[in-house]
Amino acid sequence: MDNVTAVDRSAALGIFDSGVGGLTVLKEVLKILPFENCVYFGDVGRTPYGGRSKDIITQFTRQDVAFLMEQKVKFIVCACNTASSVALEDIRDDYPVAMVGVIEPGARAAAQRTKKGRIGIIGTHATVNSNAYARYIHEIDPKLKVFSLACPLFVPLAEEGYIDKEATYLIARDYLQTMRDVDIDTLVLGCTHYPLLKHVIGDVMGDEVLLIDSGEETARAARDVLSETNILNPGASQTPCPEGERRFFVSDVPEKFGGVASRFLGQEVSRITRVDISRY
Amino acid sequence: MDNVTAVDRSAALGIFDSGVGGLTVLKEVLKILPFENCVYFGDVGRTPYGGRSKDIITQFTRQDVAFLMEQKVKFIVCACNTASSVALEDIRDDYPVAMVGVIEPGARAAAQRTKKGRIGIIGTHATVNSNAYARYIHEIDPKLKVFSLACPLFVPLAEEGYIDKEATYLIARDYLQTMRDVDIDTLVLGCTHYPLLKHVIGDVMGDEVLLIDSGEETARAARDVLSETNILNPGASQTPCPEGERRFFVSDVPEKFGGVASRFLGQEVSRITRVDISRY
Repeated sequence: MDNVTAVDRSAALGIFDSGVGGLTVLKEVLKILPFENCVYFGDVGRTPYGGRSKDIITQFTRQDVAFLMEQKVKFIVCACNTASSVALEDIRDDYPVAMVGVIEPGARAAAQRTKKGRIGIIGTHATVNSNAYARYIHEIDPKLKVFSLACPLFVPLAEEGYIDKEATYLIARDYLQTMRDVDIDTLVLGCTHYPLLKHVIGDVMGDEVLLIDSGEETARAARDVLSETNILNPGASQTPCPEGERRFFVSDVPEKFGGVASRFLGQEVSRITRVDISRY
Repeated sequence: MDNVTAVDRSAALGIFDSGVGGLTVLKEVLKILPFENCVYFGDVGRTPYGGRSKDIITQFTRQDVAFLMEQKVKFIVCACNTASSVALEDIRDDYPVAMVGVIEPGARAAAQRTKKGRIGIIGTHATVNSNAYARYIHEIDPKLKVFSLACPLFVPLAEEGYIDKEATYLIARDYLQTMRDVDIDTLVLGCTHYPLLKHVIGDVMGDEVLLIDSGEETARAARDVLSETNILNPGASQTPCPEGERRFFVSDVPEKFGGVASRFLGQEVSRITRVDISRY
């Protein structure tokens, strides 16, 4: 990109998701890049994306990115597995900033850490149908075996706080039986809501299966890109480094978002502004 | 309305919903008004409405109605409990056709049939927060006691076909315990998805609690309005009466809708056309 040299290093990172799930990615970003300014956009007015078509997901993703571009972000994290797997590759060349999605980092971590060469992917219908995780994994090593499974009820269960309930265990056992049968040793949590159910999923799969949290891997990938392209915030080199500013935008009224967001992010969320995303 | 006399009696009924749930209402309409032409619009590209704000729900509802008006329908059934309870009263006077929502018919049936004067309402967060059922019930009889409860997981469970599963019973027992404690004798299924879980809800509540299906009541209300305003399709008076034409429109790709829709409607659904609803 010709204009990389012109990037304002103090500009914010833009992070977007179909709703609140991407806050689990933001949480990891804030851990390792605390000095960066961040703008988060959550499309809560049209969430969830996971059951929709490629056409609609691509249209929504373009609008989300257009809003972040207007905020003059220096870099974009697509924190939504569905948008990353279905739309990101088709649109990334149309914008003058670098973008990282959650698929490639999660796929790379799984490919590196599996010992048996047998990897499971769980996500939404759209993510699984796209086959994006398997494509990335096979680019790294075509011999790896990949098994993908949609677990659509995990999103509403996580959003409703049905975390430690017997019903959630029953549904998880029901969904994940196939993954147990095919003898994987590594399971990618291919939806940003799933880390909230990590405990349940881990119990059902057993200790011998390694769970990969795409959010953690994506935060590291974002740090690597910022560092390699020399656009880390100048505050990064100060001691102690100053904490960046965080701003939140949503496509529906902010009140409800604040409560759920604080649970997902693990800290109080304020300064939430509403955007009419249909105008982008 | 001045232009009632100008209504084309052969024109179609317009029925809309946030997605597939309204097909349970269409099913009841087709039973008692088989001779009517029907246009169904399902906003599957933006479903579900139940967790969104009044602002967004009203914006989406206006777009849904604008599309049906363009189809020159003679009458509109708002088959979505959320849209009916949150938006319908605010917008109905802005359009030149009569509209019926699902709240008033369900509320009336509950008020007429309760013996103890204690009525339960279950629905989405938006429906429950609107208090619309309680308002209609109290217009009929201010002495009736109304208890309202949001059961948000029932929608994804119904859509995923989790009908007869133990997990669904556990969640239903969890949600409905309050309704059992307050000793209601009548429970309104205030969401068009809930009739799919009628068996589970009935088992949990027990035989002594009467379940009211708003869809059935709404179909009867629609027939009454069409009859009273003399705009029933002329085919109604023929013997045997000819079957009306059914057309389906959705705001995302039609393929997935066809399968789920056939399950909800109990018959094959074809002739499904996609609409870009954001243009309305």
